[in-house]
Amino acid sequence: MFEAAEVGRTLSKKAYKQRLPALRAALLGAQQQLRTASFPVLVVFAGVDGAGKGETVNLLNAWMDPRWIATRAFGDPSDEERERPEQWRFWRELPARGRLGFFLNSWYSRPVVDRAYRRVSRVEFDFQLRRIAEFEKTLADDGALIVKFWMHLDKEAQRVRLKTLESDPLTRWRVTKLQWKHWKMNDRFIDAGEQTIRTTSTAQAPWTIVEGRDEQYRSVTVAESLRDAISRRLSDRAPSGQKHKRTSRPEPVDEQAAETVLSHLDMSKRLEKRPFERELLKYQGELNLLQRRASRASVSTILVFEGVDAAGKGGAIRRITAALDARDCQVIPIAAPTDEELAHHYLWRFWRHLPRAGRVTIFDRSWYGRVLVERVERLATRDEWRRAYAEINQFEDQLIDRGIVLVKYWIHITKDEQLRRFKEREGSDVKSWKITADDWRNRAKWAAYEQAVNDMIERTSTRQAPWTLVEGNDKYYARIRILQTACDGLRQAL
Amino acid sequence: MFEAAEVGRTLSKKAYKQRLPALRAALLGAQQQLRTASFPVLVVFAGVDGAGKGETVNLLNAWMDPRWIATRAFGDPSDEERERPEQWRFWRELPARGRLGFFLNSWYSRPVVDRAYRRVSRVEFDFQLRRIAEFEKTLADDGALIVKFWMHLDKEAQRVRLKTLESDPLTRWRVTKLQWKHWKMNDRFIDAGEQTIRTTSTAQAPWTIVEGRDEQYRSVTVAESLRDAISRRLSDRAPSGQKHKRTSRPEPVDEQAAETVLSHLDMSKRLEKRPFERELLKYQGELNLLQRRASRASVSTILVFEGVDAAGKGGAIRRITAALDARDCQVIPIAAPTDEELAHHYLWRFWRHLPRAGRVTIFDRSWYGRVLVERVERLATRDEWRRAYAEINQFEDQLIDRGIVLVKYWIHITKDEQLRRFKEREGSDVKSWKITADDWRNRAKWAAYEQAVNDMIERTSTRQAPWTLVEGNDKYYARIRILQTACDGLRQAL
Repeated sequence: MFEAAEVGRTLSKKAYKQRLPALRAALLGAQQQLRTASFPVLVVFAGVDGAGKGETVNLLNAWMDPRWIATRAFGDPSDEERERPEQWRFWRELPARGRLGFFLNSWYSRPVVDRAYRRVSRVEFDFQLRRIAEFEKTLADDGALIVKFWMHLDKEAQRVRLKTLESDPLTRWRVTKLQWKHWKMNDRFIDAGEQTIRTTSTAQAPWTIVEGRDEQYRSVTVAESLRDAISRRLSDRAPSGQKHKRTSRPEPVDEQAAETVLSHLDMSKRLEKRPFERELLKYQGELNLLQRRASRASVSTILVFEGVDAAGKGGAIRRITAALDARDCQVIPIAAPTDEELAHHYLWRFWRHLPRAGRVTIFDRSWYGRVLVERVERLATRDEWRRAYAEINQFEDQLIDRGIVLVKYWIHITKDEQLRRFKEREGSDVKSWKITADDWRNRAKWAAYEQAVNDMIERTSTRQAPWTLVEGNDKYYARIRILQTACDGLRQAL
Repeated sequence: MFEAAEVGRTLSKKAYKQRLPALRAALLGAQQQLRTASFPVLVVFAGVDGAGKGETVNLLNAWMDPRWIATRAFGDPSDEERERPEQWRFWRELPARGRLGFFLNSWYSRPVVDRAYRRVSRVEFDFQLRRIAEFEKTLADDGALIVKFWMHLDKEAQRVRLKTLESDPLTRWRVTKLQWKHWKMNDRFIDAGEQTIRTTSTAQAPWTIVEGRDEQYRSVTVAESLRDAISRRLSDRAPSGQKHKRTSRPEPVDEQAAETVLSHLDMSKRLEKRPFERELLKYQGELNLLQRRASRASVSTILVFEGVDAAGKGGAIRRITAALDARDCQVIPIAAPTDEELAHHYLWRFWRHLPRAGRVTIFDRSWYGRVLVERVERLATRDEWRRAYAEINQFEDQLIDRGIVLVKYWIHITKDEQLRRFKEREGSDVKSWKITADDWRNRAKWAAYEQAVNDMIERTSTRQAPWTLVEGNDKYYARIRILQTACDGLRQAL
């Protein structure tokens, strides 16, 4: 695979100097246009030691405007990072739309090194690479431009390069025993590299292999590829204006859907006040004890609450938080995104709220908004909400892999019950603020929401992260059911 | 001081049950109104172990709507926190306007414990308390409502309380050897508490001492105080609408100012191209070596660039970044704040960008915007920009205390030189985007800006964090001067 990058390509100093001014002007120009474009650019650098990854990044920073570039290199994770799924630290450093992110020692670094050291099997490595491909697909689907450079040197060229670095007092510090150790493992790194490129070179995020021996050649090659990739993307979008035009028109939802999982719920389930009060104390006490154990064991919990308006999410959440130590627990209400959140992938705002180890985070509405309100209200295109099912499953897989307890509730009420609650709220002094014109508007789309909920449950209720469907017409019954399920989830994990 | 909190105040179960419904409704109502108000509420809990701090916070969370409350308890700092000034972790957890933050083990915790253990002298403790008072003043001046509860128990009551907790299997875990050790040190904690309350009870952030023995009494006392504090603030603001009305009208700047520090600069200083190129290489090399040492020594650097439009900030910054490893270096361009930033104190957005240990952060414009553009353009009131000098000095003190190298540049050019550069930019294909109508508008206020700069330098050029005034008419001269100063700053710190 790397033969083409071992032919000894060079660029003369003269040719280099000739091409440089126009190249820099083009890069600056592209960057300038990018500032008002609605996509971020991720540039990933990988490859063998000494192939010029760091130098190239520094050079690009010097050639371009460093104010709109974030350069990130990921070493050992900090303790805050270790407490979340591995991708958390990459998500938190993603560039916003209109900006560039240069990634050295990126998401490829640890898997490749682990594989070269044979800490993981070929199959495990393949799994990790597929997860990376999914990560990049998720970002690319959202419009991110992903450009990846694999900087290559053959074993002999690498040896010469390391020797050269060692002989110069200014660069000697860069060559440590580790570099020589890796050099001896060259075959293994090449092997891991091949597997990486094969598995993760996709149409949306292709690798460009760059021969790293000659500094002029590699710098100009990388810079030109980057310039071309940005310009191509900018001109693709140019005719339709600056904003990413939605290509597929949202379709009307089929309101005559057949029976749904929701229609199978026994909505008559109820619980009397007395047994409710008894059970409430019992399960709150149990949840408290379980959460204390979870906290000591550094097990985090995420509870997701979804349901139609007036389904009783708030009341149920308060019965949970009342059982927990407020120090360990955070409720995240999901309303309209902030402008920082809008400048990123829609999942970014949820990644940023993932709890530290041993804590409980309660999402009052969640990432499922993408396939519920955004679908029904046509805020997301058909493509967008359709691919969200897979994106969400992948996101939740990572939570589960990290050992996080994930419980998802859909609290269901009937259309009649909602009407009753709306009227009750309107008639109450204390609760009238809870009901707005929006609520009535949403209610008019009941059938569309029902279908969206049905699809959501069908596609995202996995064995690992099942939905708990809660019959919510009776609040007492619903609250106990919810507490019970939270206890079960924690108990299984501990 | 605590005598009044040792009289054995109680509230009967009956009286408690009577008052509770109205109290809860009032708290929820206040919270609801607060959601659209333009200030955050900080509630601080401190006091001796066993006095009910945690229980009270949990109760308030149960009584109010936990979605708009963030409860934070600060234990040992994470490694990311340790790499910043101590207040960083408090700043990052401050509630946005319209929200409540409950703080357990807050900024008072470590200083009080350190003092009780005699790890710090009385004088040092006093210094820490004064810094806390400044912190609270900074937030209160910005509109934050700060409510502080000191939960007290006398030594005997504390003993009984710890024994009671120990005798119940459900609460036994909360009493460890540490609690008993602290109990024995009761006198010292009381002593540290008195000093704390005396030094940090200000009009804007007063302490309320609460007798913690009786659960009903302390819960209702805290809840009522909180309700009253929020209502009082809400009604103070009510007549002037939801938004915080600026009370003092910004005054016109005296454009006939006498001579300024800037008028003393020798603006004819210049450097020829040849020596520039030689010196550039020399100082860039030196800076690179120094930063590598700083990185190994975990010394962080912050460079602040201010200057009129077209002063050459961008070019100077690129000469610095070109010398550094892009991995270690981040340029933060300061433009209009995001909506998340607007929902916090103006310093919050700078706190959040403080670098991890061993890195360089370059601010292209900075917190000084408060006393420059915000003053001249009347975006800040006279009160706001006037108190900003002290706030900024305090902020920078903390950077210096943490061992961060702070270098602040004011790049100055003459009015004629600016005109020449504006025209040059307008005439250039590559640079024309750099000049906008805003630039011409700002230019018309030259004298006002000059006076603001003069005041800024006078008040914020401290021995610890002096301004470097750079004569910028000649770019070669300015860039070398800037590089030189950065090297000097690092060299002194290492």
